[in-house]
Amino acid sequence: MTCLPNVVWHNGLITKKDRWALNKHKSALIWITGLSASGKSTIAHELESLLYEKGIRSYVLDGDNVRHGLNRNLGFSADDRKENLRRVGEVAKLFVDAGILTIASFISPYESDRNMIRTLFHEGEFIEVYLDCEMVICESRDPKGLYEKARKGEIEHFTGISDPYEIPANPEIVVNTGVLNVYESVEKIHSYMKSNGII
Amino acid sequence: MTCLPNVVWHNGLITKKDRWALNKHKSALIWITGLSASGKSTIAHELESLLYEKGIRSYVLDGDNVRHGLNRNLGFSADDRKENLRRVGEVAKLFVDAGILTIASFISPYESDRNMIRTLFHEGEFIEVYLDCEMVICESRDPKGLYEKARKGEIEHFTGISDPYEIPANPEIVVNTGVLNVYESVEKIHSYMKSNGII
Repeated sequence: MTCLPNVVWHNGLITKKDRWALNKHKSALIWITGLSASGKSTIAHELESLLYEKGIRSYVLDGDNVRHGLNRNLGFSADDRKENLRRVGEVAKLFVDAGILTIASFISPYESDRNMIRTLFHEGEFIEVYLDCEMVICESRDPKGLYEKARKGEIEHFTGISDPYEIPANPEIVVNTGVLNVYESVEKIHSYMKSNGII
Repeated sequence: MTCLPNVVWHNGLITKKDRWALNKHKSALIWITGLSASGKSTIAHELESLLYEKGIRSYVLDGDNVRHGLNRNLGFSADDRKENLRRVGEVAKLFVDAGILTIASFISPYESDRNMIRTLFHEGEFIEVYLDCEMVICESRDPKGLYEKARKGEIEHFTGISDPYEIPANPEIVVNTGVLNVYESVEKIHSYMKSNGII
């Protein structure tokens, strides 16, 4: 197989920086962690909407699109939860390489799992967002009735009740979703991205 | 958590069609299948380069970025090869949903595996490209010396020698890479995408 010598073609592989140039914004992984009902999914999708309106390419990875597809063959054992997050981290790495501002929304209660994902990324490309919301507030919201079921013992290994949540030691952003509303929470993350030159 | 009522925000989740509108092109999965040394990787990356120069967002999924990351915990048993392709299919589905024109380059010798991936996509969003190249030509190229090793029995289950390659029954595109050069091969795929309104 030969290549016509007179065809002007991009010299070599397309890199992440080429994609940043095309998109006119950088890419990174916004990793949103917090208790059930702390607002992760709502904030992830509102952030995506805000970025979209600004012409920024972003994508949300969460249980909805990962657990029913890529990770449909995983359960909820300790090993499977770890593998669930490992795969999400690796997929996010591909997305970031493709130039997409990636938003991951997972309880991800263990510091070791979150740090394992951090190691996959370059400095400044993994942005850990801790949704700090007292459990009593999360439990009072309980939109899916999960806390109630967990209290009754109907759900095992429920983070905050029968399983621990390890508060991030050094997150890039802390958002108190017990105090801030959705708009203010999203704006805090958005401001961070702007002031750090990502967008 | 409340949302300020006077904030104008995108109404609901961002969809694939929203992303197509932002990018000014559609997304799909270009699945390149063929024997070892039939030109898959070269064509995948040259296609990506051509699309990039036209301002189209694309991304190549191949053994290089998948086997060392997401699928690093898979070997080469029949089950693991199947799971390798299943995961690639699911990741490609996320990429296509994110608006990226996704190019997958894998030998993928079994019709059942390729068809399994096809079922993940909407009509017209899975484009199977068969690189039709006689094995004698592939073997004479043998850039990595794999055919030689397989002939000596140093590689088991080598497609075309000790394992079958099932020729696609109804691929969207057939490219004879034994006859066409890289430029002509890429142009054939590019033309298909244009005439089918993807780009």
